[in-house]
Amino acid sequence: MINVGIVGASGYTGAELARILCNHPEVRITAATSRQHAGRPLSEIFPSLRGKVDIICENLSVAELCDKADFFFTAVPHKTAMDLVPGLLAAGKKVVDLSADFRLRDVLVYEEWYQAHSSSQFLNEATYGLPELYRNRISGSRLVANPGCYPTSIILGLAPLLKAGAIEAQTIIADSKSGTSGAGRVAQTGSLFCEVHDGFKPYKVGRAHRHTPEIEQELTVLAGAEVRISFTPHLLPISRGILSTVYASLAPGFDREKIDTLYRNHYQNEPFVRLLGEDSFPSTQFVRGSNFCDISYKIDPATNRIIVMSAIDNVVKGASGQAVQNMNLMYGLAETTGLSMVPLFP
Amino acid sequence: MINVGIVGASGYTGAELARILCNHPEVRITAATSRQHAGRPLSEIFPSLRGKVDIICENLSVAELCDKADFFFTAVPHKTAMDLVPGLLAAGKKVVDLSADFRLRDVLVYEEWYQAHSSSQFLNEATYGLPELYRNRISGSRLVANPGCYPTSIILGLAPLLKAGAIEAQTIIADSKSGTSGAGRVAQTGSLFCEVHDGFKPYKVGRAHRHTPEIEQELTVLAGAEVRISFTPHLLPISRGILSTVYASLAPGFDREKIDTLYRNHYQNEPFVRLLGEDSFPSTQFVRGSNFCDISYKIDPATNRIIVMSAIDNVVKGASGQAVQNMNLMYGLAETTGLSMVPLFP
Amino acid sequence: MINVGIVGASGYTGAELARILCNHPEVRITAATSRQHAGRPLSEIFPSLRGKVDIICENLSVAELCDKADFFFTAVPHKTAMDLVPGLLAAGKKVVDLSADFRLRDVLVYEEWYQAHSSSQFLNEATYGLPELYRNRISGSRLVANPGCYPTSIILGLAPLLKAGAIEAQTIIADSKSGTSGAGRVAQTGSLFCEVHDGFKPYKVGRAHRHTPEIEQELTVLAGAEVRISFTPHLLPISRGILSTVYASLAPGFDREKIDTLYRNHYQNEPFVRLLGEDSFPSTQFVRGSNFCDISYKIDPATNRIIVMSAIDNVVKGASGQAVQNMNLMYGLAETTGLSMVPLFP
Amino acid sequence: MINVGIVGASGYTGAELARILCNHPEVRITAATSRQHAGRPLSEIFPSLRGKVDIICENLSVAELCDKADFFFTAVPHKTAMDLVPGLLAAGKKVVDLSADFRLRDVLVYEEWYQAHSSSQFLNEATYGLPELYRNRISGSRLVANPGCYPTSIILGLAPLLKAGAIEAQTIIADSKSGTSGAGRVAQTGSLFCEVHDGFKPYKVGRAHRHTPEIEQELTVLAGAEVRISFTPHLLPISRGILSTVYASLAPGFDREKIDTLYRNHYQNEPFVRLLGEDSFPSTQFVRGSNFCDISYKIDPATNRIIVMSAIDNVVKGASGQAVQNMNLMYGLAETTGLSMVPLFP
Repeated sequence: MINVGIVGASGYTGAELARILCNHPEVRITAATSRQHAGRPLSEIFPSLRGKVDIICENLSVAELCDKADFFFTAVPHKTAMDLVPGLLAAGKKVVDLSADFRLRDVLVYEEWYQAHSSSQFLNEATYGLPELYRNRISGSRLVANPGCYPTSIILGLAPLLKAGAIEAQTIIADSKSGTSGAGRVAQTGSLFCEVHDGFKPYKVGRAHRHTPEIEQELTVLAGAEVRISFTPHLLPISRGILSTVYASLAPGFDREKIDTLYRNHYQNEPFVRLLGEDSFPSTQFVRGSNFCDISYKIDPATNRIIVMSAIDNVVKGASGQAVQNMNLMYGLAETTGLSMVPLFP
Repeated sequence: MINVGIVGASGYTGAELARILCNHPEVRITAATSRQHAGRPLSEIFPSLRGKVDIICENLSVAELCDKADFFFTAVPHKTAMDLVPGLLAAGKKVVDLSADFRLRDVLVYEEWYQAHSSSQFLNEATYGLPELYRNRISGSRLVANPGCYPTSIILGLAPLLKAGAIEAQTIIADSKSGTSGAGRVAQTGSLFCEVHDGFKPYKVGRAHRHTPEIEQELTVLAGAEVRISFTPHLLPISRGILSTVYASLAPGFDREKIDTLYRNHYQNEPFVRLLGEDSFPSTQFVRGSNFCDISYKIDPATNRIIVMSAIDNVVKGASGQAVQNMNLMYGLAETTGLSMVPLFP
Repeated sequence: MINVGIVGASGYTGAELARILCNHPEVRITAATSRQHAGRPLSEIFPSLRGKVDIICENLSVAELCDKADFFFTAVPHKTAMDLVPGLLAAGKKVVDLSADFRLRDVLVYEEWYQAHSSSQFLNEATYGLPELYRNRISGSRLVANPGCYPTSIILGLAPLLKAGAIEAQTIIADSKSGTSGAGRVAQTGSLFCEVHDGFKPYKVGRAHRHTPEIEQELTVLAGAEVRISFTPHLLPISRGILSTVYASLAPGFDREKIDTLYRNHYQNEPFVRLLGEDSFPSTQFVRGSNFCDISYKIDPATNRIIVMSAIDNVVKGASGQAVQNMNLMYGLAETTGLSMVPLFP
Repeated sequence: MINVGIVGASGYTGAELARILCNHPEVRITAATSRQHAGRPLSEIFPSLRGKVDIICENLSVAELCDKADFFFTAVPHKTAMDLVPGLLAAGKKVVDLSADFRLRDVLVYEEWYQAHSSSQFLNEATYGLPELYRNRISGSRLVANPGCYPTSIILGLAPLLKAGAIEAQTIIADSKSGTSGAGRVAQTGSLFCEVHDGFKPYKVGRAHRHTPEIEQELTVLAGAEVRISFTPHLLPISRGILSTVYASLAPGFDREKIDTLYRNHYQNEPFVRLLGEDSFPSTQFVRGSNFCDISYKIDPATNRIIVMSAIDNVVKGASGQAVQNMNLMYGLAETTGLSMVPLFP
């Protein structure tokens, strides 16, 4: 049994970790932290967990955390994570960090998009936790940077194409739409029910969203050459789910048949990637609550473009489910352990 | 391993049975029927099931069904069920019927509210499948009539009170609100997104809903005297969930403390009933996707009334989850087998 | 032209006043206040108003307010209103107050449910602004207390019955459901999209909601004897709309025909009350955005109860629309002026 | 007073025409047709219209129609319209057709995307009813083809750019998202509440949606050269609203300042186009129920692309509102007559 601590348990990703881990056969939740809710049972903050999770939220120092658990999910905001993780590692613990603090390998890029980095010495060591790309490195890591939700959906959609040179990398446009849980459990006017319900809007348009450099970093690795994309996030009036619609021009010599082969070879043994047929398109409601990433694509000969679509649950494959998948790899467990949830539809 | 057939797999309760059973450790789905979709994989009709359920829908005769499975969930409309079930029983199969056909013990009442009954000889044998009330009888049954969704929420809320004579039974008013999945996967104008979304309305007001006699039958048993209630169903713009707000006058001599004891004694060992604290009220979103029934109550001394509130997921505890709970009992399995789903929130 | 000031323009009722008044032929909005957003155009806070409303929000003293307008809607929280209104009246202005501060005639009741009252000398003078009951008194008033949203729906539903003694007043149970705009534009966790969406729950159960004494005050007047009710509010995952389902035992001698006559006589000339047929029930979506109150009722002979249902848009007939209706009366304008909005469906 | 007939009154666009026209000061609705609902008041089918619209639906021949009204909105499916319109014109009536039948000028293109055209002789005469582009021609027309909803949003967003040659026309990618009312009031499984709610998906991807040739026809006129675009429609879990996010590469020599001037010059006198500031983006909820089209754009120097965003209410500016705007022009009325509805938010 792994003794696991959830640092930052009172946010949506923290609660989702608890939801998944309470049914995980190899895990015991032995610590859960919340500054705001210290002393309260986590199941009081999230009554959905009643009868399943009985941990009490505490406000714990790093030393206290290290006494309570061997493995940590840090589900705290960026900046907070970078100050916390070194202490955990120094005590010999393993960490999956769900913040942005260890995702970017280049400290200059990090500091351009976020703020000064206090633990940049770990940027090279940290593994980008997308198992479909970095499975082997994750298995041997003590620090895994769990990917952002938008990047997960876009990178998984494009990886087979970029690795094979099947698209013109400079033509990539990613139009992404996310459910409101992505904004976190933060009391702000813009996330109120009445502001979001029955509406739809773009935000942080034109190279303004902090997931941009993360996406470009990984696409650049895949393409073997620097990639710049257009990325537009939108806010959906749903709780969970990201759907990315990605456009790119096909490189010469690639047709539907070749593209099919690329995707099949790349993903046929992946437990959490589901390739749909030619005229079946992903829907967020068909991955809701699960760790699946559904992908399909369509080629338009008239414009020579491929349109790749991918759907994930941003709280699961885009955050807490992927984090558990990473933990499984780091402990040599079957990658799917505790992640058998079937999408909840309707 | 139990070989299980889902008769009527292409409705929402059929799909939910598949969602639950594909993770059930003692079950193999060996048949799934759909007249409309014969020949198609169930996971094509419900893409949420891709990669988890690989059964093909078929249009099967009773004889063919009996060749394929040992246990059947009949998730078909009333009338269809009564024509089908006798053949399955005659072949030595066990059945949980999710229709209304075997819920009412009095054939005259059934025929007043529905239509002529072709298999009324089974009405006495069938067990009303509310495990919290009839656990022992269910264990020994070959035919279990799975309760309606509204009745489940109302009966579980009132059982401890009626058994103890704590309320005046003739004062019961049940104001219930249900998600739209209760209307089934039927293409009708009234269930269209644009008709239901961002709205709310009562329907079948004033002794018009067919769950009325079912509720009254069970409340009458509990009270030991004939009970007539007011029951008003309403349509919520949500997919899943029923919340019932039930009002009754307290009988003399009952106060909060005594009522607390009644509920605690009645439900403390129930795996799927969660009693909330005095000022914590149930919410449909905290039972979504799970087999839980959340209950709380409040006494208003000024009017001498108790207000009992209960919440279930109508597709799970109100249908398919409860059906699996019944199957577990009929096979001597742990009652919670395959039903460990944690509510999905947000 | 009436020069109108909206005090508290940055809440939902303030914005709704602006939406209605900008098309009102006899009104000019000459002041709009917001402490938080002083200096910003109201149409920047509510981009829906762009091109229709060009007023700038200001933080104004009473004296400054009095310089700018002749008529005021005070759409501020209770307590704030009672400190503000006397100054406006002293300057000879007319006021419709949308807070709770002048709705209760008995200062002791007010202080039991709210806090100390600093302007109780106006409680007798203030007219309860339900035009269907107090039209004449409103016309002659300089201070109108605009009713609460829940009270509007419940009182309008019951008025014809109570006045005629057609129901047993001590049996009234009001089960009400409100859209989330009723919680105001306040950044709080409980009103976040992810907390409300796809869910439903009761709150302030058992004589805990502050609208209770207001409802009972008016029902008592109608019945001519003290009335105590059970009132349970619920939170709907919709933006706008209240539906109340109200139960009561019929008094001897009243049947459908007599009840029909009561309602018809009471409401046939009311421009904003729509009586539906016997088996047509109100829906919030059919009054959305309008000043209508839709009412129907059903008698259940088996329990001798009448079930009265009423639907309003809580932001319009339950707040800003009714406030404009009151203003029209106070100025001798046609009561429907500026209130011709047709419900927006779908 | 214009006597107006609504042909096809029982769909969402028909009901919306009634909602708008019942408050239009120069119009009287003298006919409303519905085959399915003949004999029923329109306000029974759409209870939102109770008390505002008292027309009875009828099943009328062309001759009967011509007796009843002088102006017709044909809100019927394509194919039905083309068989109906010639008779109305022959009788000297004016028509705004809301179907696709007269939008495409090239009969071959029409027949490639739809079916054989029985009235192609009117294709040249019909005016494409986008007032912002064709105001003068509309004024003199007797047959106006009301634009599709997606085309309206995309064409209005791009018109200033294409006319000025500010973008590379062959790089246009339009990623559009529509509310479910766009699917019409048709009882089909895919439009059920439970299928759409809390979800999001693309459909008709890759040159498969019939609005593609309509969009390309108008963009080609604007650009003065043949334009081919990528257009991907998506289904939003909202009732009303379209938001299009359109990407294109900037032509050499155009920067933010020049683009601002283009848009300002093009739209500054348009009553229904609202240009937002640089970091203010359109939201469907801020145009809901109104005839506005909100537009903004952002330039990303790193990729040399402009991202244009536009939002409309698909039932108003995307259908019935624009149809009334066209009628106003055809009768020499002020273009905004009857269209003063302020967006309904929240």
